[in-house]
Order: sequence, then structure tokens, then C-alpha cells
Amino acid sequence: MNRDKGTLYLLPVPLSDGAPFDACITAGEVDVLRRLRYFIVENVRSARRFLRKADPAFPIDESEFVVLDEHTSPADVPAMIRPLSQGKDIGVISEAGCPAVADPGADAVAAAQRQGFRVVPLTGPSSLLMALMASGFNGQSFAFAGYLPVEGGARQRRLREMETRVRREGQTQIFIETPYRNNRLIAELCRVLPGTMLLCVASDITGPRESIITRPVSEWAVAEYNYDKVPTIFLLHG
Amino acid sequence: MNRDKGTLYLLPVPLSDGAPFDACITAGEVDVLRRLRYFIVENVRSARRFLRKADPAFPIDESEFVVLDEHTSPADVPAMIRPLSQGKDIGVISEAGCPAVADPGADAVAAAQRQGFRVVPLTGPSSLLMALMASGFNGQSFAFAGYLPVEGGARQRRLREMETRVRREGQTQIFIETPYRNNRLIAELCRVLPGTMLLCVASDITGPRESIITRPVSEWAVAEYNYDKVPTIFLLHG
Repeated sequence: MNRDKGTLYLLPVPLSDGAPFDACITAGEVDVLRRLRYFIVENVRSARRFLRKADPAFPIDESEFVVLDEHTSPADVPAMIRPLSQGKDIGVISEAGCPAVADPGADAVAAAQRQGFRVVPLTGPSSLLMALMASGFNGQSFAFAGYLPVEGGARQRRLREMETRVRREGQTQIFIETPYRNNRLIAELCRVLPGTMLLCVASDITGPRESIITRPVSEWAVAEYNYDKVPTIFLLHG
Repeated sequence: MNRDKGTLYLLPVPLSDGAPFDACITAGEVDVLRRLRYFIVENVRSARRFLRKADPAFPIDESEFVVLDEHTSPADVPAMIRPLSQGKDIGVISEAGCPAVADPGADAVAAAQRQGFRVVPLTGPSSLLMALMASGFNGQSFAFAGYLPVEGGARQRRLREMETRVRREGQTQIFIETPYRNNRLIAELCRVLPGTMLLCVASDITGPRESIITRPVSEWAVAEYNYDKVPTIFLLHG
């Protein structure tokens, strides 16, 4: 129906300011974004900075930016993608990494899919996937669970359930934590999980302090580490 | 312990021959691979072709290639990563996309992690992740289940279980099928799943016939499509 109108391009950005730009972004993405003048972004300032870094001559002042973040009402999303029906392409840019995975950009994608527009994802850095690659864990079966619940009872139930899915299904479990609680989470995992279970801690991926380490929980319990305030992915496997 | 010795680099390759190279591979990856002379590869011919495409001057004849594929005995993997202990870096290359996710490269990563070597994943195309980005589905909670079981009873149980996890947990379900069975799988999904469930079919990602379409099962049931023999990812959400 609308596949011959505008296209919604999903434009990955580096995972952090410390990551070398040309290790994260392909030349093909830069070619695509040069042609775009309309953007749906999680944060205007960081999106402008990204575009300027991708192409110092990018005509930012001739471009339009609309914000889609966690405060946006879902009712406002269909209007954001209206340029597509006029044949104009749109770029979606999130704060870090690949847009529309675990961020509000997914609402724009869902709206575009509902109306039958073409959606094109571009290659870029995904901390989840890169953590999985480097963990050595089973990539035939894995699940990402987002943030662990904060509340004690729900949190314990989630941890038990993850342990069960590792053991019964061989399913790698991937999750994240608010970065200032990273160290406490590792200590907690060492208390509640069996010592033989493997825990991978993947931190500052692509950044200057990148560290991706897999060891048994029993070794983490006596290891020295400090992941305080560093974006980190946690993975469990049997 | 061994973090100051050699590094195991995970080198993504394009998802298909039809994908434009510079839309899949970063300049940073090309810089890294130029320095490597030892490779663990799923297929020697395609790995050589990739290196030659990345850098026509790459000294392939001065490089060593060892094969790690589905026929490799796990007992042979530790010897493959021995160059790391001599301070030599190794590149891991699979047949398509990101190595060590759902392919034998994961065994080399696991061995390197067990011995405490540094493992560095590079940015590249992942058909799973790009399908998820473009589906519009929940990226806060998703699971990849690999291939559906072939045997009838196990297959039905798996489909029921996926349906339950979509409904109860809001967990996006991602799976694949042998490409010559793609069309039959869609017909099967239309028979067994509720018509209101959303099915995304993401086909030939980054390739010339790329098509990523999300619609309710009831619409797929009457849609025209032909994904025969084209690599395709399937995703379900509520």
C-alpha cells in the first residue's frame, strides 16, 4: 500500500562518546543520513551532535527534529510519521546504539508498520548483541529481560525464573541494571545463584574501558571489580 | 591473568553477497583485520573472499586459517586459540553476520574466556537484531529460539509456548526456519495462531530483496508472499 512512499530509516549511533566513531558507524549509514532532512530523535542535542560528527557539512538548520522519548504520548506518534505519506524519508535516532530496541523509537516503527510504510534498519553497534557474541554463551537460544524488578519479591522471582530457564532450556539470560547499582547486583547474584553457573559481565562495550569477562559465579564472588556507573550488560548461562 | 596476551577479535561479515559491503562493515573493522594473520573461520573460501574485499592488498598467503564448523570436535578448539598465549591476536569469521551468535565460533570464545584472554566484539550486521529493530515490537523483553523443532508434537508444543510467552510476559518471540520451508511456516502460523497476533517477516536483510513487514496473522492469511529460499527471520508479538 504505502511501500512506494517515504521510508523510515533506523540509524544507529555510537554506544558512548568514548567510542571511536568509525568503529561504530558504517560509510553506508553516512550516505543514507546525508539525504535525510526529517528526524525522530530521543534527544535533539545528541542527535545533532551525531549528525555533525557523521558529516561536518550536514545542513542541520534546514532539518526538522521531533522528540520521541519516554514522556511522549503514544497518541502523538502517528503525526510524527506523517512526512512518510508525502514521500519524505525519516531517520530515527536514539541516545545510544540501535534505535527501536528497548527505546521509544519502537513506537514510531510500529506506527509505520501499521500504515504499511517501508522500514529499513541500518547496521550498527548493539551492546546486547556484542555482549552475547563475546560471552561465549549459547546464541541458539537467548532471552533479554531488560531491567530486573527493583521490588524484593518480584526481583527474587525473576532471578529464580532466569536460573530455571538457563538450567531447563539452556537459554542464555541477558539483563541490565541501573549503572550505579552494578556492583551491588554482582554481589547479589553471587549470593543467590549456584557457584557453578557462568556469569558474563560486559562493560563499556566499544569504549576505552571495555571489559567483557565470563567466569563462574564462585569466582566472581572472590574477584576484584568495579563497574560503578559504567553501562554494563549481564549474561547468565549454565 | 592472560588479558595482556593476544586478543580474540570477533569480525562480522555481510549477511549476504548481495549486501553492499560498506553498509555492513565499518572502517574500524577493516583497520583491525589488516593487522591479523591468524583466523578461526567457519568456511575458508568465504573468509578469504571477505578479507580480499575488505582490503585487496591483504596478505592472504601469509595468513593462517583454521576451520571451526559444525563438524569440529570441541576437543580440538583449545589448540586453535593457542596463538593467543604467544601474544598473537586472532580473528573469528563466520559465514554470515556476527560470529559466535548461533554459530560454532562461540566455542572458540568460550575457550578464550575460560583461559582469561581478552575477547573484543566488533560492530556489524545481525539479522536477528535488525529484524527486531524494524518489527516495531517490544525490545524490552524478547527471546530468540533458533529453529523450530521439525517433529510435529515438539513443534506444536514450541508454538504454544511462544504464544503463551507473548501473551503472559509480553515477550517478543524470534525464530527461524530452513529457507525452503519459509512459505509453509507462514501458512502453518496462520492456521495455529490467533488472528490478532502480530507476525513480522523480515527477509533478505541488507540485501537487494529486503522486506520487513509486520501485520496481524489474519492479514498474513490472505496476503500474497513468496519467501522461498530467502533467509528470513520470524517474530511474534501481541
